[in-house]
Amino acid sequence: MQSLVIHNVRPMGGEATSVTVSDGRIQSYGWHVQEGAELLDGGGAILIPGLVEAHTHMDKTLLGMGWYRNEVGPRLIDKIDNERMQRRVLGIDPARQSARQAVLAASLGTTHIRTHVDVDTEVGVAGIVGVLETRERYRDLVDIELVAFPQSGMLIRPGTVELMERALQLGAQVVGGLDPAGIDRDPKGHLDVVFGLAERYAVPVDIHLHEPAELGAFSMELIIERTKALGLQGKVTISHAFCLGMTDQDYVAALIDELAQAQIHILTTAPASRPAPAVKRLVEAGIVVAAGSDGVRDTWGPYNNPDMLERAVLVGLRNNLRRDDEVALALDTCTYGGARMMGLDDYGLKPGCRADLVLLDGETLAEAVVSRRPRKIVIKGGKVIARDGTASIPAP
Amino acid sequence: MQSLVIHNVRPMGGEATSVTVSDGRIQSYGWHVQEGAELLDGGGAILIPGLVEAHTHMDKTLLGMGWYRNEVGPRLIDKIDNERMQRRVLGIDPARQSARQAVLAASLGTTHIRTHVDVDTEVGVAGIVGVLETRERYRDLVDIELVAFPQSGMLIRPGTVELMERALQLGAQVVGGLDPAGIDRDPKGHLDVVFGLAERYAVPVDIHLHEPAELGAFSMELIIERTKALGLQGKVTISHAFCLGMTDQDYVAALIDELAQAQIHILTTAPASRPAPAVKRLVEAGIVVAAGSDGVRDTWGPYNNPDMLERAVLVGLRNNLRRDDEVALALDTCTYGGARMMGLDDYGLKPGCRADLVLLDGETLAEAVVSRRPRKIVIKGGKVIARDGTASIPAP
Ligand SMILES: [Zn+2]
Ligand SMILES: [Zn+2]
Repeated sequence: MQSLVIHNVRPMGGEATSVTVSDGRIQSYGWHVQEGAELLDGGGAILIPGLVEAHTHMDKTLLGMGWYRNEVGPRLIDKIDNERMQRRVLGIDPARQSARQAVLAASLGTTHIRTHVDVDTEVGVAGIVGVLETRERYRDLVDIELVAFPQSGMLIRPGTVELMERALQLGAQVVGGLDPAGIDRDPKGHLDVVFGLAERYAVPVDIHLHEPAELGAFSMELIIERTKALGLQGKVTISHAFCLGMTDQDYVAALIDELAQAQIHILTTAPASRPAPAVKRLVEAGIVVAAGSDGVRDTWGPYNNPDMLERAVLVGLRNNLRRDDEVALALDTCTYGGARMMGLDDYGLKPGCRADLVLLDGETLAEAVVSRRPRKIVIKGGKVIARDGTASIPAP
Repeated sequence: MQSLVIHNVRPMGGEATSVTVSDGRIQSYGWHVQEGAELLDGGGAILIPGLVEAHTHMDKTLLGMGWYRNEVGPRLIDKIDNERMQRRVLGIDPARQSARQAVLAASLGTTHIRTHVDVDTEVGVAGIVGVLETRERYRDLVDIELVAFPQSGMLIRPGTVELMERALQLGAQVVGGLDPAGIDRDPKGHLDVVFGLAERYAVPVDIHLHEPAELGAFSMELIIERTKALGLQGKVTISHAFCLGMTDQDYVAALIDELAQAQIHILTTAPASRPAPAVKRLVEAGIVVAAGSDGVRDTWGPYNNPDMLERAVLVGLRNNLRRDDEVALALDTCTYGGARMMGLDDYGLKPGCRADLVLLDGETLAEAVVSRRPRKIVIKGGKVIARDGTASIPAP
């Protein structure tokens, strides 16, 4: 494979240098004459590692379909039931839709995605099959990791556990879960199944936990207990974790200690309208914090797009991160935080790391983040796959 | 003045029609042969009235200056003191900076701005003079209303009251105030001066109220009392009003009733990291709710830009407004809400209204809001002043 030398880039907004990439990895920094290497002018751009979308739902985005007029009721279960119905009414094809989001995300500098894919007794594993197709077809653009996700509940819908198992056999790499108390009405039963599957298939766990305050804290304790009992430290993520935004600060402090000890990761979308985990406090406690867009333009809501620089801004706004070092922390949840959560080997800017890189126009790192301009260049596995916001492969 | 006919536009995303503009006003809808009229193809765009930026600080934006590295402390007073110092260190020219924001805002479809301009014993009324200059120079692009704003406190800085008075004599159209308890340490004294100036100069009032929970509620009560006593119903705005996001829901309900009776308007930036007024609840109580960007790229924080469609999205995210009719409500705070707050005559899309208009590319109104694409055409006083996101007049 041909080498690539990019001149005049500023790693994380620092001093200008050149970076040499070969065999899909960062080889070195500084000026080296490399015979036959492809040359690229970085134009003084800021070099960051690829953005990491650590929580989304690619199988059911409505990107590229007609505008969905949202008239859905306010409860969580309204949204879940409506979505199951709309899948048929609107004809949401998981392969096509996930491909659209994959290409858009890649054009925005995302090089790694964890996506939760619906598994239920209506759709079966069709979503898993569709997103696996996209994972293969677009593997040169972006790495996609699938979570088998029981969106409509698991124990309340007999047959779902078997489908979850089938999803893992087909190639889903993570076992998901959802509101053990709030949706499945049986926290012990739900979590025993989820962790049982994790053990049997040797896969990590990622559980949606919207349950508020003390209820969510109870479910969180059950997750912590199982993580420790099964030796799954570093392999478990709790997504949303709204309960960490609850009022009782002593209880929150105790939970944070427990999460840190069990090496459980926290995923946040930085929701503006809900109590939410305090990112800086968690990071200071040594907990890995990652960020995600959640559903992009779907039947749940219209706002989200898969731009992880916009997500960094939302993390910053939600957590009142104003100083330049704090903006860098917000970005970190969309880069290194996600990479650590997903256990990505060789992620980052060090020599030897995989050459998954983004060049950002900008004066400083913070300026580039808040400005969210089209990505100048995106490199995946050592190859340029997008320029000026447009991916080299069109979306379906 | 020549008439202008715009074909094929969809008012608020409805049925396509033509709109005829003459003498700077909307004349009629539907197809009319108009001899000698200028013709414009709307291309099926969505037609909305001009966006209203109802709270910003144009005198101290850092737009177009070198990136300001933010290392400021966490308290409100840290930010106030730092800013007063940076004004000198960075050389923030109020005329130049407000001009930059005016042109950028106009290119984004903002046709009306209320800006709070610092008045203090260090800068005196230089900020007022500078922004008045911008108001005149860019009057064909955007209407600018000035609030005389005692950012560094009023009673705690002897000499400030006289400067506030001078600002009103020079042409500031609104009297401002700031945290009567939290900053000036004398809620009665502060508000008596503010409302005294309002009475003497026959100007509306707009008070920054960051004070939290029960403390802010107390200051709010004092504002309500004075509004009623002086017959200033409909002339008073409380900006931020974080206290309306407090826990005690009975107290909030009582305050909302009182605010509605006194016809006091609420301005929100929809902050993600602070308790905040519940927009939908206030609107349902009959209170005018407007939205603003607050400081744009200044020493306070890096995130804000003056795009009022982005603000509508932030209002939507903060208030969990997901349905299409709710997205329209979020947009309303950035259009009609601001117009009512500022008492704009003849604002809107009805025949007879001033032709301050924005054409948005989009499938539906909600789609256009969440997509935030460059504004197709901006019309101010019947004339095209921006196309495809670029204003006809360059910024300094
Ligand atoms: Zn999710
Ligand atoms: Zn302000």
